[in-house]
Amino acid sequence: MRDRIVIDWGTSNFRAYRFGPGGMVIDRHQAPAGILTVRDGDFEAVLRREIGRWMTPEREIFLSGMITSRNGWVETPYLECPATLAGIAAKAQRRKLSDGVRLNFMPGVSTLAPSPDVMRGEEMQVFGVVAENSTATIVLPGTHSKWVRVVDGAITGLRTFMTGELFALLGQHSIVGRLMPKTPAPFDEAAFLAGVDRAFGAESISLLNDIFTARSGALLGAFPVESIASRLSGMLIGHELAAGLAEAGQGSPRLVIVGDTALVDRYSKALAHRGQAAEIGPADAAVAGFRKLATPA
Amino acid sequence: MRDRIVIDWGTSNFRAYRFGPGGMVIDRHQAPAGILTVRDGDFEAVLRREIGRWMTPEREIFLSGMITSRNGWVETPYLECPATLAGIAAKAQRRKLSDGVRLNFMPGVSTLAPSPDVMRGEEMQVFGVVAENSTATIVLPGTHSKWVRVVDGAITGLRTFMTGELFALLGQHSIVGRLMPKTPAPFDEAAFLAGVDRAFGAESISLLNDIFTARSGALLGAFPVESIASRLSGMLIGHELAAGLAEAGQGSPRLVIVGDTALVDRYSKALAHRGQAAEIGPADAAVAGFRKLATPA
Repeated sequence: MRDRIVIDWGTSNFRAYRFGPGGMVIDRHQAPAGILTVRDGDFEAVLRREIGRWMTPEREIFLSGMITSRNGWVETPYLECPATLAGIAAKAQRRKLSDGVRLNFMPGVSTLAPSPDVMRGEEMQVFGVVAENSTATIVLPGTHSKWVRVVDGAITGLRTFMTGELFALLGQHSIVGRLMPKTPAPFDEAAFLAGVDRAFGAESISLLNDIFTARSGALLGAFPVESIASRLSGMLIGHELAAGLAEAGQGSPRLVIVGDTALVDRYSKALAHRGQAAEIGPADAAVAGFRKLATPA
Repeated sequence: MRDRIVIDWGTSNFRAYRFGPGGMVIDRHQAPAGILTVRDGDFEAVLRREIGRWMTPEREIFLSGMITSRNGWVETPYLECPATLAGIAAKAQRRKLSDGVRLNFMPGVSTLAPSPDVMRGEEMQVFGVVAENSTATIVLPGTHSKWVRVVDGAITGLRTFMTGELFALLGQHSIVGRLMPKTPAPFDEAAFLAGVDRAFGAESISLLNDIFTARSGALLGAFPVESIASRLSGMLIGHELAAGLAEAGQGSPRLVIVGDTALVDRYSKALAHRGQAAEIGPADAAVAGFRKLATPA
């Protein structure tokens, strides 16, 4: 088998990997060339500019992420759960460029039950983490945190929590943010964990009320304004964890957290504080997933 | 007793009422002269510009709302629950202008248990609604919805829900809003009630997930993008109602909704849909509260 190229082309970033036949990463390239930076929809020009030197008709290219969305190059339908890596690869939309270079646009993954949900790109991290027959819940913290259920190596369900986006919105645009110091205060672990505890505790009757207490508590002197952001972060992550754990329940022998180091650290601290065991997955989980895609069994 | 002036001076609006000795409103004046429009902190100039013709040393002026906050004219401390109208009036901060006109800046109301919470101005609507010895839960829908517990005519507790602000933030700044039509779609009652039901139902595991389904459901064709806003409104209001009702519980024989007509209508529809009885308070509840303040027993 010849070598293959996998591209993780998201909203902000372009990350390409060239894999050799044995699954080694032979070359890698990264640029701030996300789909939002592409002019007039000329994705091919950007592709050639970034990795033209790698491109030959013999090297198939696999594309994953928002490049396959409505705002990307080729929109692919979602593959409904249960979804395996082989199933995803089989549903790729194929295109051939004028010089014979072959492109495979990967579908995202969706579910309708118990709630409609979608992802596009994160599934590669999931497949990078789980072994072929393993069963686990993979937690991908972020702007839109994903809890992905994997049974015997197949994605059987997912839930998205808008934790990170809500934290950003509340800090930047809400009355809670207006009370925060102009210069962001350093992370306050005690305030963060107090926020987590509030989300899990009986005094929490609704997130809609909890987020207001990040302001009212400071106004009434329960804590300093410098700890509002950490407390708010703890409350939001705590709400996500409480709901995610309740749903994963006893059926989930393994919880694996994958993602940005700082965020993974916050989630790990919160889980440990609540007495919940969790593994930390590799930071380059996506690359491991791409390797499986590039070197199918 | 001579006549009195009561001013509801908020962030965006200035509303003044002149009461006669019998409690009749003799004159009223409203202007978009909220505290955010006041330059260089010269609140007195704005006061004289708006109601200078009413002002005499014999007519005491009572000020309520954000004019008594840190960003207002005279910051008053919060009065902690339980709070009566007489207790609030007794804690007013008094000032005398150079020409002898007397001003009374009313305190806001706060509570520390079960959660820290505050309000500044809404308490006048509450006192306008409840009779002296009545017991009820007053719901004030809005940017920061308040659920105020009144026992024997005294405010004994309050909860703020950031329902309205979150709805605005999600529509204006989030990935959910990006899918909404540029021209706001008309209110879709069926989609609104479906959102309410979701908030109360077993498929809702967290508001953080529910708000994302307003996007993912449309992406997967479960409903049209035109109904995202109504559905989101229903989910947010539903979460507020579910939490507020659970806390008010059996101890609340009366639920009274007070506020802006369109919002009160949405809350009433949602409550009726969930089989919960509720009274609708007068739209001018604040004026009724001011009347009691202006004509103490």
